[in-house]
Amino acid sequence: MISEPSIPRTIEWVGGLDGHVLLVEQTLLPVELVMLECHDTGTIWQAIKRLAVRGAPAIGIAGAMGVVLGLRDDAASDRASFLDKVKEVCDYLATSRPTAVNLFWALDRMRAFAASLDSDDVVEIKLGLLEEAKRIRDEDAAMCRAIGVAGEHLIEDGAGVLTHCNAGSLATAEYGTATAPMYAAHAAGRRFRVYADETRPLLQGARLTAWELSRAGIDVTVLCDNMAASLMRSGAVDLVLVGADRVAGNGDVANKIGTYGLAVLAQAHDIPFYVAIPYSTFDRDTVDGAAIPIEQRDESEVRGGFGRLISPEDVPCYNPAFDVTPAALVTGIITDRGLIQPVTADRLCGVLP
Amino acid sequence: MISEPSIPRTIEWVGGLDGHVLLVEQTLLPVELVMLECHDTGTIWQAIKRLAVRGAPAIGIAGAMGVVLGLRDDAASDRASFLDKVKEVCDYLATSRPTAVNLFWALDRMRAFAASLDSDDVVEIKLGLLEEAKRIRDEDAAMCRAIGVAGEHLIEDGAGVLTHCNAGSLATAEYGTATAPMYAAHAAGRRFRVYADETRPLLQGARLTAWELSRAGIDVTVLCDNMAASLMRSGAVDLVLVGADRVAGNGDVANKIGTYGLAVLAQAHDIPFYVAIPYSTFDRDTVDGAAIPIEQRDESEVRGGFGRLISPEDVPCYNPAFDVTPAALVTGIITDRGLIQPVTADRLCGVLP
Repeated sequence: MISEPSIPRTIEWVGGLDGHVLLVEQTLLPVELVMLECHDTGTIWQAIKRLAVRGAPAIGIAGAMGVVLGLRDDAASDRASFLDKVKEVCDYLATSRPTAVNLFWALDRMRAFAASLDSDDVVEIKLGLLEEAKRIRDEDAAMCRAIGVAGEHLIEDGAGVLTHCNAGSLATAEYGTATAPMYAAHAAGRRFRVYADETRPLLQGARLTAWELSRAGIDVTVLCDNMAASLMRSGAVDLVLVGADRVAGNGDVANKIGTYGLAVLAQAHDIPFYVAIPYSTFDRDTVDGAAIPIEQRDESEVRGGFGRLISPEDVPCYNPAFDVTPAALVTGIITDRGLIQPVTADRLCGVLP
Repeated sequence: MISEPSIPRTIEWVGGLDGHVLLVEQTLLPVELVMLECHDTGTIWQAIKRLAVRGAPAIGIAGAMGVVLGLRDDAASDRASFLDKVKEVCDYLATSRPTAVNLFWALDRMRAFAASLDSDDVVEIKLGLLEEAKRIRDEDAAMCRAIGVAGEHLIEDGAGVLTHCNAGSLATAEYGTATAPMYAAHAAGRRFRVYADETRPLLQGARLTAWELSRAGIDVTVLCDNMAASLMRSGAVDLVLVGADRVAGNGDVANKIGTYGLAVLAQAHDIPFYVAIPYSTFDRDTVDGAAIPIEQRDESEVRGGFGRLISPEDVPCYNPAFDVTPAALVTGIITDRGLIQPVTADRLCGVLP
């Protein structure tokens, strides 16, 4: 049984069709917790753009709820012109973050759902869309919860757990992916310590993971990324537990830059290395990690990432967004369909329905 | 032949006994190069305190020159009372950075030198002290240059060299330790690329190493510490070259936090790992790395190191200043007395005179 962690839901719909979206304003964390009320689709568009809401699942949910906000007051009285308007609102929201695959997925789902409703009553379609947006949120929360159930036994009483970036509640509807087993183990009464890599350049570990875990009453300590090796050597780390952006058909894992280094260090120190993902993140069409393109992000994130110049302006910076961890370094993959261990292509595909 | 790198000397004495100390104001780097003129011992004390001058050898030189500034105008006319004043000035300067072993060493050397001079002429002793302070500087520069000679062949044309922190010119009189082979290889006309880890929490790599190497015309790229593993995997790194604070009798290396992780990653990628040190850094009285105490520094360096809060105030931070790399992971130690490779206790001691 997982009890509710004592953190706000990252995003939810409040009230009926005349209600609003309430989301955690993440740009102000960890200094301040402010809940942002969104009463119109433009505010959602801005929230996605400004990274007030981030993390693929949370962005998808925001997009879906943004569709409802953009349509609920629409004056169209016939089905055909209303469906045109659905497309218009979805196209608009898609421009808020043009690389967010999960946003497109959610918008497509909303559009398809509207088209599938066998009704000429526009109000009925609007109410249906609201239910669908809430369903996307609830399904995500249930998926995270299932990851927690599948992985919580890995965190024993007294354990030290090292994590990287924020594959947390703040990136999803609730519970997170890598953090889900932590919330579940905590709810089960086990005491353990989480070590959160600060995760340069954008510091999601220091800013977000440390914040949400400490708020939930979980013992968490922040460290700079380059301190993980000596922490492992000290014996304080019993397992590494991270999320993933994508898992290739052979089990290679693409995740936030720094993950691969942790996996190498974990192996050198004989520490198990787990990856927690929604099973939907498994991408059997990508043969292996070599086929995953690595986005190079703007140098300014490294050079000026703390609001001031930390490196000479004329010196280039290396800033890959992700790295790829070979399946051979991954002890197990925790999914909403259960724990996959050892990680082999056969076992990965075997979990498919 | 090593030509002069095109960077200012970190610290030097300008003029005669009525001259002054000129040093690079390092707190303003990399944004601005300002040379700080020190005309009195109080300014030196402040410069050491404020980290305007940092790096063990550079601090020692600053201390020695500060002794001269504090004594040159002294009114004492007899040897005994002048020697009392020498002790007083040295004791004062020692309070500027109470853990700086090299500062104490330099101050002791200045005091012993004054006492050893067989003269009753106070002006003659003052001139002798100035010469001694310049000698400390020149010996340091020569030592760095010798490290460069011993190590420059390791950097081949087209090589990629990964370094950590700033064991550079800015930490010494000139040339640096880990950077000395780079300056030497550059002067020899070889083209190579240096990758400088930014080195959290205090960012010496991004702020200082990137600055001094780029100024000297060496191709340098900055990366966040957690990107080193994927850079190694990409094949871009041919050797790792770092400095050390202390090398134990068995060859274990204490250096800036993050060094140990790089050594583990280098071994996993079959990349040689070199440490450059003045032979005086070899501490045969310390049996091995386990005997080296690791200073835990203030949490605020991690939590608020960039002038703003990056992690919740109530979440603890892990902030060890150093880590220890076992000798088994060190390919070779480059010293002013030659290259020690492989690294064994016998070979380390064998280099002693």
